[in-house]
Amino acid sequence: MASVSQDQKMALLGDSDKLQGVRHSCAHLLAAAVRAIWPGAKNAIGPAIENGFYQDFDLGEVKISEEDFPKIEEKMREIVKTWGSFAVKEVSAEQARKDFAWNEYKLELIDEFAAGGKMITENDPGGFLDLCRGGHSENPAQEMQHFKILNVAGAYWRGDEKNKVLTRIYGTCFATKEALDEYLKKLEEAKKRDHKLLGKTLELFTHSPLVGGGLPLFLPRGAQLKRNLEEYIRAEKVARGYSFVCIPHIAKDLLYEKSGHLGKYDAMMPIMEGDEGDAFVMKAMNCPHHFELYRSLAHSYRELPLRYAENTVVYRNEKSGEVNGLFRVRALTQDDTHHFVRHDQIESEIDMILGLTKSVYDTFDFKNYKARISIRDPKNPDKYFGDNDLWDKAEKKLVEAIKRWGSPYFIGEGEAAFYGPKIDLMVEDALGREWQLTTVQLDFTQPENFDLTYTGEDGKAHRPAILHVAILGSIERFMGIIIEHFAGAFPAWLAPVQARVLPVGQDFMEYGNGVFQKLREAGVRVEIDSSNETLGKKIRAGEMMKIPYLLVVGQKEKDAATVAVRNYATKEQKVVTVEEFLQLL
Amino acid sequence: MASVSQDQKMALLGDSDKLQGVRHSCAHLLAAAVRAIWPGAKNAIGPAIENGFYQDFDLGEVKISEEDFPKIEEKMREIVKTWGSFAVKEVSAEQARKDFAWNEYKLELIDEFAAGGKMITENDPGGFLDLCRGGHSENPAQEMQHFKILNVAGAYWRGDEKNKVLTRIYGTCFATKEALDEYLKKLEEAKKRDHKLLGKTLELFTHSPLVGGGLPLFLPRGAQLKRNLEEYIRAEKVARGYSFVCIPHIAKDLLYEKSGHLGKYDAMMPIMEGDEGDAFVMKAMNCPHHFELYRSLAHSYRELPLRYAENTVVYRNEKSGEVNGLFRVRALTQDDTHHFVRHDQIESEIDMILGLTKSVYDTFDFKNYKARISIRDPKNPDKYFGDNDLWDKAEKKLVEAIKRWGSPYFIGEGEAAFYGPKIDLMVEDALGREWQLTTVQLDFTQPENFDLTYTGEDGKAHRPAILHVAILGSIERFMGIIIEHFAGAFPAWLAPVQARVLPVGQDFMEYGNGVFQKLREAGVRVEIDSSNETLGKKIRAGEMMKIPYLLVVGQKEKDAATVAVRNYATKEQKVVTVEEFLQLL
Repeated sequence: MASVSQDQKMALLGDSDKLQGVRHSCAHLLAAAVRAIWPGAKNAIGPAIENGFYQDFDLGEVKISEEDFPKIEEKMREIVKTWGSFAVKEVSAEQARKDFAWNEYKLELIDEFAAGGKMITENDPGGFLDLCRGGHSENPAQEMQHFKILNVAGAYWRGDEKNKVLTRIYGTCFATKEALDEYLKKLEEAKKRDHKLLGKTLELFTHSPLVGGGLPLFLPRGAQLKRNLEEYIRAEKVARGYSFVCIPHIAKDLLYEKSGHLGKYDAMMPIMEGDEGDAFVMKAMNCPHHFELYRSLAHSYRELPLRYAENTVVYRNEKSGEVNGLFRVRALTQDDTHHFVRHDQIESEIDMILGLTKSVYDTFDFKNYKARISIRDPKNPDKYFGDNDLWDKAEKKLVEAIKRWGSPYFIGEGEAAFYGPKIDLMVEDALGREWQLTTVQLDFTQPENFDLTYTGEDGKAHRPAILHVAILGSIERFMGIIIEHFAGAFPAWLAPVQARVLPVGQDFMEYGNGVFQKLREAGVRVEIDSSNETLGKKIRAGEMMKIPYLLVVGQKEKDAATVAVRNYATKEQKVVTVEEFLQLL
Repeated sequence: MASVSQDQKMALLGDSDKLQGVRHSCAHLLAAAVRAIWPGAKNAIGPAIENGFYQDFDLGEVKISEEDFPKIEEKMREIVKTWGSFAVKEVSAEQARKDFAWNEYKLELIDEFAAGGKMITENDPGGFLDLCRGGHSENPAQEMQHFKILNVAGAYWRGDEKNKVLTRIYGTCFATKEALDEYLKKLEEAKKRDHKLLGKTLELFTHSPLVGGGLPLFLPRGAQLKRNLEEYIRAEKVARGYSFVCIPHIAKDLLYEKSGHLGKYDAMMPIMEGDEGDAFVMKAMNCPHHFELYRSLAHSYRELPLRYAENTVVYRNEKSGEVNGLFRVRALTQDDTHHFVRHDQIESEIDMILGLTKSVYDTFDFKNYKARISIRDPKNPDKYFGDNDLWDKAEKKLVEAIKRWGSPYFIGEGEAAFYGPKIDLMVEDALGREWQLTTVQLDFTQPENFDLTYTGEDGKAHRPAILHVAILGSIERFMGIIIEHFAGAFPAWLAPVQARVLPVGQDFMEYGNGVFQKLREAGVRVEIDSSNETLGKKIRAGEMMKIPYLLVVGQKEKDAATVAVRNYATKEQKVVTVEEFLQLL
């Protein structure tokens, strides 16, 4: 299995350290403003995060809602004018306890710092003392102007569900008004594109409390979209000589004991105790199954690279509070491949994989690819399995492959798994958000562990290396990403429904049905609107579903054996024959 | 879910009651022969079964193998000459206990019969007393001539794994020598066609002890064959306007509580206890998932019939001793559909389904379709849910539909489920063996239970009826059946590999590769034999894999830009261009 991070927060590039300092300072400012308005409020922690900051509060009986945001922002603006630079000073635990006697959250932190022998620091930019390590704006009145409170949510104190639920207020801040406005516009756009919202409007998927969270059920349109993705990546792989296999979704626990995952991989689903003293688990990865397939036949050097590919589901025991639409699910379909290669084939195989990856990214119009190459921790060489020279060469091969590929890259020192280095590839979507998609993991360990061999030209048994690769990663997550990337308006090849026939009235239903049948027989994913609505309503209904082509048929079209095609993307309309429309498609 | 019987024994038609009596008598004869040869042997039970009989023995230290069969058969022939008709007489338990004091198995049965107040009967056709209810040959010396001992296996006394393992000897017997020979020939042919054997030779699937029994792993060829079946049935359904959906393989236990399966359906996999007080189960059927999908949208009478179809996996907690190749597995892929129909659409929908079914059977060249229509038990009318009139009509509709379809049918009185009547369809394969494939189950209950509705023309909410239908049934089992039906020599459209290019020598590898690439780009499932073997060996290797077309390329073919096509089925060979070969395919 290629290790795929399922969920990922929206990340805009260019969040400098300085900007993060300003954002963190905004959290203090927010605390000051809230305490000015509601003096009983106790501020807990308030860090900078990607694209902004938050501050937690114990507000007692007070409930805050969106309506309070302008008042809070106004107070922040008022206070920040009076602030000077953040003077951070070290204090004794005793002094700190005195200063924060009113705030049990700060007291808990102070006790902890003291017990851990950590330095305790306070700061005060002007009339608002807070407990803090520092990393602040140097000129609050000037730098902290372009902020906005975004939303409010509940959060356990210190993230522990046994603790009290605090009120978390999120905000953002940028260096310029333009940057703030641009971000807010993107947020607005992202909200409209939210795949959970579009998933409902476009009738793509649903959830059932009886089935459970993180287990989306795909309606016909969503199932078709999912299939289109799966068939697309399958065809790309078949064209490159991949072999598709098929494995069951469960296995005895013995399989994952052998692979080393059992008891070590937290996200595994709970074990099913069999009636015969055996136990089954749902698969958390496909590698050991594919290794068992490889082992069942003899292999010659001539067959390599051998690529066992499959679009198949792995299961993650996610917490119900952490599942998130299609981004983070309990059952995720991976476009997984295990490439069994000779050591002398590693380079060319990676080039092939990166070539495929580029073709995929281009197809979906993803820009600005970027690579992270995860290598060993040079301070911790014993942690890694296998020969040092092999590692040196492998890491070098990955860097050279990315150089040949031509994307920017950075090195993740110490981020390699113990069994080999890897490449993670990231792309930007239409909103400039960064997503990690593809993983190429080199593995020298499992071939040993599963005793995988091939017969070399010398007639002797050799060990192959393995590349674990998923191009799209989780297909559910990829679906979520492209729903937002295309705002639900998919290109026709990908759209679950490509065309809808709109008869202008009941008189043209027969002609419309003929067109519908003809298109369906030609393999077009087509619908017909047989309702009694007006044409205007039919068009609006079709546009609401973002169907690429609406085919209006009335008297003129019937007489001329044509259809009037309305193109969703270009808003153009033109009259063509059914054959011409098929050509167009 | 359509209830699909996974496994099925080989059944030849025409096993009359009389023949079964003769076979049962053969079990006595076998017991007599074995006791004549090994006087310490204790015969336990010995019933007639489909196509034959068996007899269980406690043989003490004696081990019997195939080599002993002629000796046993000879002794049987010797004894049967001396036998007269079976005189069955009632005896007291006391008498029976005396007669069988040497045989603890018979004693156990006698005690049981006595305790249950059952009549105890003995018979003796001539010097061999046995405990038996009767049903015997009337003229042993004449009727019991055409028998054969087939094999030997272990079996627990009374099928209970806590008991001693006895020796079970299987045999068969027919009324004529011709019938016996024909049966033995078929057995021989069936042995050669055994899908487990062919599955290995043709590299279709494998098993791993780490994954577990009943969980086949499909190698590239098997995965392709499985996909070909799935895509075939999918295309047939899409052409008829089915909507494909996609559901997860697990659900909370709540879903099956609601559907009524939980705790009642024995074959469900063990529950997975979640970390949050919830519990998950692997799906044993797809119906409740599909109902939840249906419920997530509003439906109009115009949309019906709505057909939610899916090739998806259900799980069965089979015992490890009962799994059997692809015939009986723990994870089986169903080509399942739930047809949501108005009550006035039931007839036309069943006609459509039977039309599809016929087209499928014809495609695979299955003959002699037969239907069982399972209706209520007239003696037990309260057992069934729903209105009596509705049932009457529904049962009549099924019978009329089968009459329109034109296959022979028989009525299974009392075999309907409590929620509706059903049709099961059976076919004969190339060896004349009968297989149950398709199930059409009518359901009035679950629409109530899941509160499924549609808006009628009157604007009011109505209940749809549901047809649960699987045409191929379990796709794994169907694969097993067609592997044996075609003896692994699949028609080209279905074959996992359609063609293999055989370059006559290294000099023609380049030309061969060109042919291979051209075919692959045209979507042909093609391989190339790039080994250094002689042409003869390459042809034999290709024929061993039963590849429909072997394309030999040498000097002549290279010069003329052709291929020499060897057709596996017809053994014909002809030289054509690559384009002509594509046409042919």
